[in-house]
Amino acid sequence: MTKKKEQPIILVTNDDGITSPGIRYLIEAAKGLGKVVVVAPDKAQSGMGHAITIGNSLRMDKADIFPDVEAWQTSGTPVDCVKLAVDKILHRKPDLCISGINHGANHSINVIYSGTMSAAMEASIESIPSIGFSLLDYKYDADFSGAVFYANKIIKTILKNNLDKHLLLNVNIPSVPKKEIKGIKICKQAYAKYKEEFDERVDPHGRKYYWLTGEFINFDKGEDTDVWALQNNYVSVVPVQFDLTNYTLKKLLDRKKLFK
Amino acid sequence: MTKKKEQPIILVTNDDGITSPGIRYLIEAAKGLGKVVVVAPDKAQSGMGHAITIGNSLRMDKADIFPDVEAWQTSGTPVDCVKLAVDKILHRKPDLCISGINHGANHSINVIYSGTMSAAMEASIESIPSIGFSLLDYKYDADFSGAVFYANKIIKTILKNNLDKHLLLNVNIPSVPKKEIKGIKICKQAYAKYKEEFDERVDPHGRKYYWLTGEFINFDKGEDTDVWALQNNYVSVVPVQFDLTNYTLKKLLDRKKLFK
Repeated sequence: MTKKKEQPIILVTNDDGITSPGIRYLIEAAKGLGKVVVVAPDKAQSGMGHAITIGNSLRMDKADIFPDVEAWQTSGTPVDCVKLAVDKILHRKPDLCISGINHGANHSINVIYSGTMSAAMEASIESIPSIGFSLLDYKYDADFSGAVFYANKIIKTILKNNLDKHLLLNVNIPSVPKKEIKGIKICKQAYAKYKEEFDERVDPHGRKYYWLTGEFINFDKGEDTDVWALQNNYVSVVPVQFDLTNYTLKKLLDRKKLFK
Repeated sequence: MTKKKEQPIILVTNDDGITSPGIRYLIEAAKGLGKVVVVAPDKAQSGMGHAITIGNSLRMDKADIFPDVEAWQTSGTPVDCVKLAVDKILHRKPDLCISGINHGANHSINVIYSGTMSAAMEASIESIPSIGFSLLDYKYDADFSGAVFYANKIIKTILKNNLDKHLLLNVNIPSVPKKEIKGIKICKQAYAKYKEEFDERVDPHGRKYYWLTGEFINFDKGEDTDVWALQNNYVSVVPVQFDLTNYTLKKLLDRKKLFK
């Protein structure tokens, strides 16, 4: 008699908030692949990066809004959600953490600002294999069919292959109909950034205020980057790490002995 | 006749807020090395990571609280401060951005959560050489004498040597009297993390709430890490990068062809 294999526990979170369509599509992509538990912010938390809540306390409440799926909403950031899920809901590490599906691109430098990817990174730090998913379409009623198809494929593959306890993938899906997507490409993070300009306005009381605006500029001409893959209708998969040491610069500083 | 060399512009920011003692000590460390301009948050923004303000507008006001130094306070995050400084105050890139001196450690995994380091990283993304400084002492009246001495030494060295436009250093200073500090060590980020436990409480109305608490655990036995250097009374300098691609995992995924 063989022991019945327990189904994997899959933690789902996001940064657009628990009521956003993207998280429903991610649950759909994960269904049947394990026991899905949702712990997500109770409001939109885009652009929160790796923020954690230390100066305030947190709330967490049941949110029975998905059929047959245990779900909780918290007042915290995406990173707080992962921490709370492990300590207070699951009481163990899940087998996989998936974050998204984000409404909007998190390719290239966006990985730094993204709450979606920060939640996934937090899980990776905690030795939980983790994947962030983003669709290159900000709209509420965006077409997620390609995203769901490829998210399902990637989740299935990662659950089947025990690759690395710190595995962390940044997956972006192009905003085209499913049949136009050419497949999946393993990529590096493109060297790209935003050219910021603040929109300066004056309030009714005569005081200035500012809105952040920015134009995305890709400086990277490589064909091995996420930006290239997405422009060519591939799903981009960038493996990500949380060791931020710049070993090239470290070698240079070691050699130059500037601080002796 | 030789052209008079213009003095470098040094942008100072932090995450503890413009009135914290640490930023005054950082100004002291930079004085005489260039034209110092301060743009910092109007309140404490610790643990903000790389958060940016996109759902709200921002305020920015003059803050004449440092003798002979132009200073501005903003309602934004540390990253917002750097963006505002470049676009609205300096109207050019500064020659160096320095952030801190943080009250508390930002070694090892803290680099991910730290507003101090995220501000410095934002500058680095913008091709501005940048350094974050942190003292391993949370106290308001901590002894910053060693920190000021070594910050001055490091700022001077970096201004003199044109190493890399994306140069980004994470500098931590041990909390011991200046004469006990043994010197500066170039290090890698230690593999360490927090073991979180949320302190669960009940409010006067019977509803639960949670406080994040965590114990720092160093898993890294190496003697080339920032944690080791600090435990041995060295100033740790970790070169940091914003390319988060995990090239080792990329190679593995390329080889395995799992997504074909």
